Amino acid sequence: MKESHCDVLIIGAGPAGVMCANALAREGINVRVVDKRPENIPAGQADGIQPRTIEVLQSYGLADKLLAEGAHLNMMAYYNPTADGKGIERTSRAPDVNAPTTRWRHQITLNQTAIEDLFLNSMRQHGLHVERPVMPTAMSISDDEAVLNDPNSYPVQITLHRLSSAETASMTAANAHTNVVDPTPQLAGSTEAEELVHAKYVLGADGAHSWVRNQLDIKLVGEHTKHVWAVVDCVPETNFPDIRNRTAIHSNNGSCMIIPREGDLVRLYIQLADADDLASGGRLDKSQVTPERIMNVAKKSMYPYQIDFPHKPIWWTVYIISHRVATQFSVKERVFIAGDACHTHSPKAGLGMNASMNDTHNLAWKLIHVLRGWASSNLLKTYELERKKFAQDLISFDRKLADMFSGKAATADNAGGVSHDEFQALLRTEGGFTAGTGIQYQPSVITKAAPTNPTSGILIVGQRVPPQIILRVADCRPYEIQDLLKSDGKWKLLFFVGDCKDEKQAALVNAIGEYLQLPSSFLQRYTPKSASGDAVFSILSIARTPKDVADYTDVHEGLRSHWSTVYTDDIAVDGKNGGDAYETYGIAFSGGVAAVRPDGYVGYIGSLKDMLDGYLDDYFSGFMLDSH
Amino acid sequence: MKESHCDVLIIGAGPAGVMCANALAREGINVRVVDKRPENIPAGQADGIQPRTIEVLQSYGLADKLLAEGAHLNMMAYYNPTADGKGIERTSRAPDVNAPTTRWRHQITLNQTAIEDLFLNSMRQHGLHVERPVMPTAMSISDDEAVLNDPNSYPVQITLHRLSSAETASMTAANAHTNVVDPTPQLAGSTEAEELVHAKYVLGADGAHSWVRNQLDIKLVGEHTKHVWAVVDCVPETNFPDIRNRTAIHSNNGSCMIIPREGDLVRLYIQLADADDLASGGRLDKSQVTPERIMNVAKKSMYPYQIDFPHKPIWWTVYIISHRVATQFSVKERVFIAGDACHTHSPKAGLGMNASMNDTHNLAWKLIHVLRGWASSNLLKTYELERKKFAQDLISFDRKLADMFSGKAATADNAGGVSHDEFQALLRTEGGFTAGTGIQYQPSVITKAAPTNPTSGILIVGQRVPPQIILRVADCRPYEIQDLLKSDGKWKLLFFVGDCKDEKQAALVNAIGEYLQLPSSFLQRYTPKSASGDAVFSILSIARTPKDVADYTDVHEGLRSHWSTVYTDDIAVDGKNGGDAYETYGIAFSGGVAAVRPDGYVGYIGSLKDMLDGYLDDYFSGFMLDSH
Repeated sequence: MKESHCDVLIIGAGPAGVMCANALAREGINVRVVDKRPENIPAGQADGIQPRTIEVLQSYGLADKLLAEGAHLNMMAYYNPTADGKGIERTSRAPDVNAPTTRWRHQITLNQTAIEDLFLNSMRQHGLHVERPVMPTAMSISDDEAVLNDPNSYPVQITLHRLSSAETASMTAANAHTNVVDPTPQLAGSTEAEELVHAKYVLGADGAHSWVRNQLDIKLVGEHTKHVWAVVDCVPETNFPDIRNRTAIHSNNGSCMIIPREGDLVRLYIQLADADDLASGGRLDKSQVTPERIMNVAKKSMYPYQIDFPHKPIWWTVYIISHRVATQFSVKERVFIAGDACHTHSPKAGLGMNASMNDTHNLAWKLIHVLRGWASSNLLKTYELERKKFAQDLISFDRKLADMFSGKAATADNAGGVSHDEFQALLRTEGGFTAGTGIQYQPSVITKAAPTNPTSGILIVGQRVPPQIILRVADCRPYEIQDLLKSDGKWKLLFFVGDCKDEKQAALVNAIGEYLQLPSSFLQRYTPKSASGDAVFSILSIARTPKDVADYTDVHEGLRSHWSTVYTDDIAVDGKNGGDAYETYGIAFSGGVAAVRPDGYVGYIGSLKDMLDGYLDDYFSGFMLDSH
Repeated sequence: MKESHCDVLIIGAGPAGVMCANALAREGINVRVVDKRPENIPAGQADGIQPRTIEVLQSYGLADKLLAEGAHLNMMAYYNPTADGKGIERTSRAPDVNAPTTRWRHQITLNQTAIEDLFLNSMRQHGLHVERPVMPTAMSISDDEAVLNDPNSYPVQITLHRLSSAETASMTAANAHTNVVDPTPQLAGSTEAEELVHAKYVLGADGAHSWVRNQLDIKLVGEHTKHVWAVVDCVPETNFPDIRNRTAIHSNNGSCMIIPREGDLVRLYIQLADADDLASGGRLDKSQVTPERIMNVAKKSMYPYQIDFPHKPIWWTVYIISHRVATQFSVKERVFIAGDACHTHSPKAGLGMNASMNDTHNLAWKLIHVLRGWASSNLLKTYELERKKFAQDLISFDRKLADMFSGKAATADNAGGVSHDEFQALLRTEGGFTAGTGIQYQPSVITKAAPTNPTSGILIVGQRVPPQIILRVADCRPYEIQDLLKSDGKWKLLFFVGDCKDEKQAALVNAIGEYLQLPSSFLQRYTPKSASGDAVFSILSIARTPKDVADYTDVHEGLRSHWSTVYTDDIAVDGKNGGDAYETYGIAFSGGVAAVRPDGYVGYIGSLKDMLDGYLDDYFSGFMLDSH
């Protein structure tokens, strides 16, 4: 059998897989990604990108096309039964996103294929292609502690099988008349097409029925419901005025959610209330459901508005809602699972693909750090710590949302039903969560405030850096701070230097500049000698000197490697953008320093004095490795 | 000799030429463009893009790359002699652009090659390449009125000569040691490489020494000055804090202007005051000027700041300032000249390339209309009318600016010199002009208000449509109105329909919708029967119904071809963008209609009632041709 070595092997080229593959390929990591499907999915599946995920894609330079091609969901409309109970009427409209600090105050919907293509195109530029149709058939992990503790070892053995055309055909044929997410091929048993890969790390991003998870004997815990829902992607003809808004319809003839999509396409989620008896123990008898049946339910629930379906649906499926989370997200910090392999839930909040991509966005920089020898492998433990907690929160939110959605609407006859106010209140209080911008990672070795946490605003340890316009001092050009925090595998050190035209403040900042040049400082200790000065840490200074008098030369050279790294907190020349960064973030005018993780989350905040007292050194010493 | 026919032949692939070529190629016009240079210029020449030109490029879908690659000039700094007169100090900073309605409140600088590449890349996508090295050698225009009046005739005969490598070499060799803008080859006299082109229209975009202009015997009127200036593109090493701002330095050791450029590049304009005697009658003895001499003047004028030039300059030249405008911009509306062929002036205000590109932006849609048989050839007369007036205004502004720049700074010893306040005041009052957004085309057949001009704000007949965010009703998505006014050769009809939830207003708007469907309406008369309904006129409705209750179905079907064409004037869900469109534009709440020319300038504004009274029909009948 052919044998090979690779640093990271990714199983599955869905959203979680390609997010990780792209992040690693950009940084020159030796990575491979395999998928058992002969081609990318042609239609269907996930379609919702939440505001935080747009920010993340932007940090990889991938948001432009998404924003240009996708539908933007700005407004949500709510319809409820009319007084006579026969039809529906609009109760209200409200902004779809209830999270004021988002950079984009809307979701985006676009077919999953186009979203995956963003990553595939980027990967291609870095020489990485998905190998298909290829599936794993065996996996083992060394249990030798010495091997596991050696950062240069390849403790995972995995057998890959390249599917023959007959094997691929078996997979297609078995699933021809349904829209199964996870087809299984009949293997012919030949070993000619097999390859034994020795990997440092393996990522199972292989979906709800994850082969990797099963190999690792990791369980999913949670429950199935008996609610049966259908989903259909179509181009309807209708006089319904909110057909281009996300719309929740509670009618006495069933619930329905409208998700506008790219072009004139619309996704409809439709509750098949009369089909609940088709579901038992997580299994659904799909043979009794047809697109016609689904569309008939939609027509009834939207009465008195007319909706017709002159074209065949682009894609459709039916499913039972279940809420489950994996008990572990990694084994020995050598094999990881991510995405649907870790969590399954209802698609109503449009969070599935987002959770998946953000799982591996969280994992990728940690793998890069360990593979480069910058950090110890304890860094990898924070993946499960951070993402499992998130998944549990997600499931618990989704349970509430799905129950409300599948429940009957409150009416005169059914006072105990779901009221419009209740439903809207849930979406409002969970606004930061559903937008993804409210995610708070818990304290850990990488998420830690200094004793004198100088922030009292929205820059918070464990949260992503909120958007804020600052001005580049040398040319007064406004920059969104998030655009200075690219997902390039580096730490960003934000030095809030205050007003260096003030002599006392300048003295403090000069001391910081000098400190950073000491061989004992984290900057020198954790930057490899052979690398450029900003290989691991990028330093940005953010002053609060007014733009009319600020000079980039005000800031000590230890805090500026180039004129372009000095910013100030003021309003741009257009009189509109920027200003109040210190106030909004809650930074004292005496300054402070925030260490931003390569994934855009704040790892540390402290005062400038804390830094001189060594707290930032302490922070990095918790997981970084001395390079000298 | 080979013979051929073409609709539009463009001589010269500089900014004016490629703007026109791209605009025509996008619309499928039969166009050719030739240039005598074997390759695009490698460096130097123009580099400034004013705010209005960014808007124009955006309307062609070309602004993204420009914005990403170029330097953004947000701030202007002013330096004047210190009290002791020995050095300079900063007097003030101020926004570089003094025009509040610009969409981008800054200029962009980028090398001319990269700017031309924006167009060349776009042309390539439409199958058009510049033919090089090719130059015209003879031209004649028919004087037969019948031929000239026939829209399908080819009244211009022009001989093109493809340069041999020897001829190309002669051009290069003759100009090897200078940076001449307009090299002239020695022709070997062979006719093998010649082609006789029969053209409907010819555009001479062939620079300051225009061969086409000379053939037409069109004179430049104006004067040469004796001021000698040098320009150098370089990457300096300096402690000057405003090296990344546009900076005007008046020192007792000479004047200097700093123009930051892409990357770390800087352009310096330097007055060679002691070299004025090198210039006489518009001719300059360049042999006595070297880059070292220029840089030494820069060093002196920037004292006490240090500036060093560790690298060879990328490009440099010296020039005498002259201010001249062509007496005619066209002959018989069959041959046109544009760009530097029409106007020469100092480069200080950074307007040259902008004037050139906007010349042909103005011309292109008129050629398209006449070539398609949509409009009569009288439309073409408005090119000279509009652009010659602009060129004269440009020269007169430039004369003032150049005099102030070349004049000595006002000091205790020289009270009559140019004061800082005077200089800043000129830039402030001419802010709209230098930004390009203040351009006002005079009344003409295409620029005409209805009797009841309902606007009292910044939407003005003869000016470009100012930026404004409006919301798409169906999905509440904010749109910059300029992005709905693409340079696609079509008219945009902005129907300000007021609040159609109001019954009386709805009745008026319904009447408009019905009117547009009448065979006698301009919409039906000037849209070819075989073409789609929006082939010539795109209709946008702009309501003022609040977003929470507005429905796109409120607007009569005659005013909406699709859900995406109905907008409203409200603030977006982010609480920041949009709103007050009616107030800002000065549109009465009872509504109105603006006809926006394909180049983005307002051609007509009237009330809705005016339209029912036939004034919009009258407007279009002045130059459009009945297609039935």
